[in-house]
Amino acid sequence: MNKEILLKSRPKGRPTKDDFKINEIDKPKPNDGEVLLKSKYVSVDPYMRGRMRDEKSYVPPFQLNEPIEGGIIAEVIESKNEKFKIGEYVNGSNLQWKIFQTSTGENLQKVDSSQAPLSAYLGVLGLTGITAYVGLKNIGNLKEGETLVVSGGSGAVGSIVGQIGKIKGCKVVGIAGSDDKVETMQKKFGFDGGINYDTTDDMKKAIKEACPNGVDVYWDNVGGETLDAALANINKHGRIINCGAISMYNETEIPKGPRHESTLVKKSVRMQGFIVRDHQDQFAEGIQQISKWMNDGKIKYSETVVEGFENIPQAFIDLFDGKNEGKMVVKI
Amino acid sequence: MNKEILLKSRPKGRPTKDDFKINEIDKPKPNDGEVLLKSKYVSVDPYMRGRMRDEKSYVPPFQLNEPIEGGIIAEVIESKNEKFKIGEYVNGSNLQWKIFQTSTGENLQKVDSSQAPLSAYLGVLGLTGITAYVGLKNIGNLKEGETLVVSGGSGAVGSIVGQIGKIKGCKVVGIAGSDDKVETMQKKFGFDGGINYDTTDDMKKAIKEACPNGVDVYWDNVGGETLDAALANINKHGRIINCGAISMYNETEIPKGPRHESTLVKKSVRMQGFIVRDHQDQFAEGIQQISKWMNDGKIKYSETVVEGFENIPQAFIDLFDGKNEGKMVVKI
Repeated sequence: MNKEILLKSRPKGRPTKDDFKINEIDKPKPNDGEVLLKSKYVSVDPYMRGRMRDEKSYVPPFQLNEPIEGGIIAEVIESKNEKFKIGEYVNGSNLQWKIFQTSTGENLQKVDSSQAPLSAYLGVLGLTGITAYVGLKNIGNLKEGETLVVSGGSGAVGSIVGQIGKIKGCKVVGIAGSDDKVETMQKKFGFDGGINYDTTDDMKKAIKEACPNGVDVYWDNVGGETLDAALANINKHGRIINCGAISMYNETEIPKGPRHESTLVKKSVRMQGFIVRDHQDQFAEGIQQISKWMNDGKIKYSETVVEGFENIPQAFIDLFDGKNEGKMVVKI
Repeated sequence: MNKEILLKSRPKGRPTKDDFKINEIDKPKPNDGEVLLKSKYVSVDPYMRGRMRDEKSYVPPFQLNEPIEGGIIAEVIESKNEKFKIGEYVNGSNLQWKIFQTSTGENLQKVDSSQAPLSAYLGVLGLTGITAYVGLKNIGNLKEGETLVVSGGSGAVGSIVGQIGKIKGCKVVGIAGSDDKVETMQKKFGFDGGINYDTTDDMKKAIKEACPNGVDVYWDNVGGETLDAALANINKHGRIINCGAISMYNETEIPKGPRHESTLVKKSVRMQGFIVRDHQDQFAEGIQQISKWMNDGKIKYSETVVEGFENIPQAFIDLFDGKNEGKMVVKI
């Protein structure tokens, strides 16, 4: 039996399970040139919240009453495409939230389950790891001895960012939402310091104490007041990598905050957003470098694995409560 | 008789003449190795407002009861330094607001009054022109056919920015505070469009109408709501050059505005401040290029010349009402 998950309504503010609909559907048959895929691991990512709005962004919005698309690791269970054999695993960044689906094979990358656990290809060895690599390379420009602060520091992207910072010889301070996460950042990922924003009244002061030499590079996954606090401690020629703004994704109006333009001018600060898909030319290099660091024991990763196709919507919703440590994936 | 202008008090909000004090003092005598200078043109610039605050910035704050320092074109009227002859003109970026002063000659550049009017060396052929050149080169990265919007478009820096944009084959739209300035931007400087922010209720809409293909590069001299309106129209991979934030320089608290981090993420936008003094290695190249463009008739400039040493403070204050067209200088 096959199932699919549709976007039933565009979430107002925080998504709820009612915004999704699970249907039972027929299992499709592959045409000539196609493969039949069975989903093994489904990626849920904060950026998908943006695609649930009906507005122009870097990827088109999800359509109402259509299956949601995202990153999925699947097994080839039938093949009428000579490039793929039954039993092979593939990674598709735009597969549909379905248990079974067909594909022409376009945009599928084969993955090797003997090299790394399958789910790693959705995280550290997938777009998550590449995001960290590409953002630091093109905007971060880390120099030895600099101070790197990363919000969402125990999350999928943040944990890789911080570990690359350590490899580059930086002092790394992570920000996260629980004492457990702070401990993970320091003990597992080797960060020099950690701040629990949930128990900290004055983030500006907390960052100042954790970074007595100021902040040279701030990797921002959250936006909002955490960004304000980082900018209040930014050094001359500081760089802010605007990777995400999860604190704002569920807002229905654009929130207000202190204006930062004077700081940018006075401190010659660069703030820059980026979309990992614009840097496809660096994907192979990024994966190769991260694999090497993993093999050398320099990069570790966490993942939160939820089980069951029906639980995909809840796993997605839980991202906004920070219930994940590291990459959130759903095992089918 | 000699005079000096001291900073009497740190302005609260908008500067007033009471924040300055004019003293009569003795005319100094040069020691061995020094020259005696007579000021001819004094530059007043918005960035000086920042130095009147007692806070760390890219240049140290002015000291209370000490002469203000800035850009001055002076004549050598006595010389005990073999590098300088009587009658030569020099440009110093950190000379004091005095009619007569001595100097060791360090940080003085000779200027040639036969090549361009003396005052031009404080503007288009000085830091003003270099600011436009360096900011566009390092952050703007203009491409032919792109749309460039510049606030303060009839001002010292903005008018050069827009003309370089035209040389690079861009569509250029300027923003300024009067119909006369809008006319100057279009008729004298050759901008494609102009917006009078003072008579426009909805800047976002006005920019959209003037830039039907969106904004690729926004040169920001003002910050605040004009920046918001430009960002609301920014294209993917847009670049914002944060050169100044004159709308905020007299604020006593950091104003609030809509948060921009989501836009930076969604549109892969780069916002970057810069300080022209960090790019000394590009000064010679910039001056050479701008001189060439001037000789080719591709760059014109405006200046507002106020007469009289005692009027320096008022000329400075008038910058914040936009009373200048082009570079504001005081002729002594």
